[in-house]
Amino acid sequence: MFMEIGQYLNQRLQELGIQYIFGVPGDFNLSYLEQIEIDPKLEFIGNCNELNAAYAADGYARLHGVSALLTTYGVGDLSAINGIAGAYAEQVAMVHISGIPPLHAVEQGALLHHTLIDGDYDNIMNCMREFTVAQTRLTPANAVSEIDRVLKQCILMRRPVHIQLPSDITHLQIKVPKQPLDLSRPQSDPKLLQETAARIAKRIKQARQPVLLIDNEAEIFQLTDMLQNWAERMQIPYTCLSTAKNIMNESHPLYAGVYAGAASAASTCQLVEQSDCLIAIGPRFTDVATAFFSHRVSVQNMLYLADSCLCLDGQMISGLDLAQLIQAISKQTLDDQPRTFNPAPKPSLQTQQIEENTALSQTALWQQISEFLQEDDVIVAEVGTANAGLSGLTLPVTAKYLVQPIWGSIGYTLPALLGSMLAATQRRHLLFIGDGSIQLTIQELSTLLREGLKPVIFILNNGGYTIERLIMGENAKYNDIQNWKYSQFAQVFSADTLHQAHIVKTPAELKRTLAQVHQAEELCLIELQLPRMDAPQLLKQFAEVVARYDYGEYGYKQLVEQNTPPYKKAI
Amino acid sequence: MFMEIGQYLNQRLQELGIQYIFGVPGDFNLSYLEQIEIDPKLEFIGNCNELNAAYAADGYARLHGVSALLTTYGVGDLSAINGIAGAYAEQVAMVHISGIPPLHAVEQGALLHHTLIDGDYDNIMNCMREFTVAQTRLTPANAVSEIDRVLKQCILMRRPVHIQLPSDITHLQIKVPKQPLDLSRPQSDPKLLQETAARIAKRIKQARQPVLLIDNEAEIFQLTDMLQNWAERMQIPYTCLSTAKNIMNESHPLYAGVYAGAASAASTCQLVEQSDCLIAIGPRFTDVATAFFSHRVSVQNMLYLADSCLCLDGQMISGLDLAQLIQAISKQTLDDQPRTFNPAPKPSLQTQQIEENTALSQTALWQQISEFLQEDDVIVAEVGTANAGLSGLTLPVTAKYLVQPIWGSIGYTLPALLGSMLAATQRRHLLFIGDGSIQLTIQELSTLLREGLKPVIFILNNGGYTIERLIMGENAKYNDIQNWKYSQFAQVFSADTLHQAHIVKTPAELKRTLAQVHQAEELCLIELQLPRMDAPQLLKQFAEVVARYDYGEYGYKQLVEQNTPPYKKAI
Repeated sequence: MFMEIGQYLNQRLQELGIQYIFGVPGDFNLSYLEQIEIDPKLEFIGNCNELNAAYAADGYARLHGVSALLTTYGVGDLSAINGIAGAYAEQVAMVHISGIPPLHAVEQGALLHHTLIDGDYDNIMNCMREFTVAQTRLTPANAVSEIDRVLKQCILMRRPVHIQLPSDITHLQIKVPKQPLDLSRPQSDPKLLQETAARIAKRIKQARQPVLLIDNEAEIFQLTDMLQNWAERMQIPYTCLSTAKNIMNESHPLYAGVYAGAASAASTCQLVEQSDCLIAIGPRFTDVATAFFSHRVSVQNMLYLADSCLCLDGQMISGLDLAQLIQAISKQTLDDQPRTFNPAPKPSLQTQQIEENTALSQTALWQQISEFLQEDDVIVAEVGTANAGLSGLTLPVTAKYLVQPIWGSIGYTLPALLGSMLAATQRRHLLFIGDGSIQLTIQELSTLLREGLKPVIFILNNGGYTIERLIMGENAKYNDIQNWKYSQFAQVFSADTLHQAHIVKTPAELKRTLAQVHQAEELCLIELQLPRMDAPQLLKQFAEVVARYDYGEYGYKQLVEQNTPPYKKAI
Repeated sequence: MFMEIGQYLNQRLQELGIQYIFGVPGDFNLSYLEQIEIDPKLEFIGNCNELNAAYAADGYARLHGVSALLTTYGVGDLSAINGIAGAYAEQVAMVHISGIPPLHAVEQGALLHHTLIDGDYDNIMNCMREFTVAQTRLTPANAVSEIDRVLKQCILMRRPVHIQLPSDITHLQIKVPKQPLDLSRPQSDPKLLQETAARIAKRIKQARQPVLLIDNEAEIFQLTDMLQNWAERMQIPYTCLSTAKNIMNESHPLYAGVYAGAASAASTCQLVEQSDCLIAIGPRFTDVATAFFSHRVSVQNMLYLADSCLCLDGQMISGLDLAQLIQAISKQTLDDQPRTFNPAPKPSLQTQQIEENTALSQTALWQQISEFLQEDDVIVAEVGTANAGLSGLTLPVTAKYLVQPIWGSIGYTLPALLGSMLAATQRRHLLFIGDGSIQLTIQELSTLLREGLKPVIFILNNGGYTIERLIMGENAKYNDIQNWKYSQFAQVFSADTLHQAHIVKTPAELKRTLAQVHQAEELCLIELQLPRMDAPQLLKQFAEVVARYDYGEYGYKQLVEQNTPPYKKAI
């Protein structure tokens, strides 16, 4: 069968279940856009700029599993690259398609605009190579094999890939295979698999106190149900790293809290660090997740199980698929007696009595938000204050928590919200974002409105970069930002679209607003006016450690001079 | 003398005359920001995001000569890289300083946020290497020598450089030299210089009709006065490429128009292509500048004089400084008789009679704008409709025309305006930008307002990406954008700042508005409502050629099906 190259790419994207392609038109991707436009199963979502488009694609993939991003050569690619790098860091599968100059121009090194006028057509690819797991420049000869290779890599590795599609070849006919793309994971060597599973099962059986320590890789490779069931059957307690918020049931008695090194609750810390069999699923002991490397986890006691490799008793084992391994372990432990686990008493909720007509505080905010959350919500949280506040709450079990904790690029969440909503239109979406962050990407609110989406957007306006103020420069001008009329933006972006806008200054106003929003059938924009230096306790502690780690002696001195208790010597 | 590393960097920046540093705070650049904050001669301008900051730095350098940009590691760097690549393509000297994680973390490959959690701290540098002429990672040992080396490269090459400044070393004391940075250009070999100048002078003397063909390198290396004086003394006509708009006096009788290959006026085309001695100053025969390589310039007749090398009669000569060479040529031709040049009659202005109360058209717009422009204006033009319209006008002789014609990244001009205004606060600034473009970077209007700057901003609202529609997809959804309330943005970004906002729909309204704006002492925001498919003739012709070049047979078919005269078979 013959088919146009662009059509073939579209067919493969549809096999991945992709329905929306995010991006910005440009003079090298128009003919491919034509092929998207006439495809009844695909829709192009034009974003306001390419970085926002990449963030939107990231958000879409977090709900759907994989996404597509379309840019134009050079200017578009490089505008998007920070979003692509973020997807790499966070294990998000994203197909980046770049409409590049026609092959004849590329091959002769023609001096085109959107290049450095030096005939070099490799520099963009060189950059993309740093942040994608596969790259290709399509030609009529390689289009079939390369599209299939690169898409397969994207799905297997759950990381971005980069496809350069020359503008002059989109409509050429090529012979294409009938079979759908084979996306199955290779079967692991059965002998190695059974031996390893048996070894792990034995280790668990002999252990005094096995404990699961779970990171986001469990979500990425869809292992959470498997792990939850197994943990319940075995009565093995599980803990998560902060980068895996709410991927497991955090209301279950076996859930023993977030492990964050010295910043953990004492009972969680003890459980993890004193376990003689810590079954760690893809753990990434990052600065933020470990309160700057304060974790005390011994290699001898840890069974390190990641997609890339395992480490058992200091021995590295490669080539085993994580899902197949966990299934095998589960089978091998079928006859084991369930253990008994006595959960530490959960810290009481510490609901504080809030005076309703005082200024809104972080404490009052998160208490009310906690009650506002519902099952199945998608809760999108910007790093910084929002993530710190929500991390302290127990979320509804089936709620999805969407955050970019590793790459931590501010401004990410507003466009990511656009993507996640298009991937799960039936779920209620809440966004929590700070004033400092929303300024980077505010225009994507326009696209949310244009697409008729109806999220509830909380803008935490605390007058600047509070997280930075906590680290350094509490009163420095560089941490100030312009105070926008946040609640008026829906009006200027899309005057004709029904929406709600609120400004909230007190707990009483918040209560009233949440009641209204609860009934809303339109997009809601809520500006929360919060004190400048108020922050969740977690953030204050974090900031102090950052200052010492990043700025050494100088950072420490600044802390002593500037900051006031209670976050002195927190950790 | 001992000094802190950050202070030393600041001292060197001041030696370059830099007063403002653009950027966004982040957790790895705060201690350096402290050093900027306490420096009475430097001011940090916090932008809304890093791409905007890079564009602002680019604009500043175009007026001042060199600029500085500050980002934080990873997220900030990659957000800015499209702006840095643009500066490279356009020969703009920009010092990019990235606050990176502390040296101890970098050296041990610590698993920090804002990285890929793989211990790799080279990937950002690898990307920057593609778009900067020098890169360095500072240490206490190399800080003095590396800062000086990199800054010197920046100035010599007029391209961006990349400095990684680890967060923990900014406040360490290092021994610094007393001498200011030596920024002199090396003297060319006197013998080679004189021989080459003599050879060129002889070639000119023997020629029937020498003609200058000047590109933007003349502006970059400050050769325009020298060339203007020499051309006037010798009575040699000069032409410019479109990428060198208004860098020479375009009202002088010797000015023979823009050379753009087949798209040139017939007299300009003839003059350039039939010259037996075409003295070409750094010409870049790009797609856009040559109506897609329709130039007919023979290597035998061209003296190619660029900063990187010369080419005379097919022979390449390296190592000669362009300014020194032109001075030497000027001296060697001191005794030559001036030639006689009979300029072709300038095409008459073709002022059309406009019905004042009809819908505003491109024709009506540019006729009125032409009269509105003043000497010394800085005219900032977005690529696309704005640049095409302004390119057709004869600008005031001392006006500066600021555009990004090579890299052509849409959205560039609004942030660039911020930079150029801070570099030349006393000059009136006008910005012409389309609705499609301003959506990418709208938030930087906030910074313009915050800094109390008072440009006149014309937003050409033609309901989407008109330049793309002309190429392909006239009625395609992907070329539509959301219709914002453009005139209300000053209000939402900075409610307390005095400003004017206008919506203009007819020539009569434009006339009244321009009169008001002419007197204005505040920022003016003017939304020009223009027909969707109206465009300057130049842009229509360009779009047709692009469609054929980029999309081959398919592009041509689309043109035939979709488009209507008059821009059929234009070139």
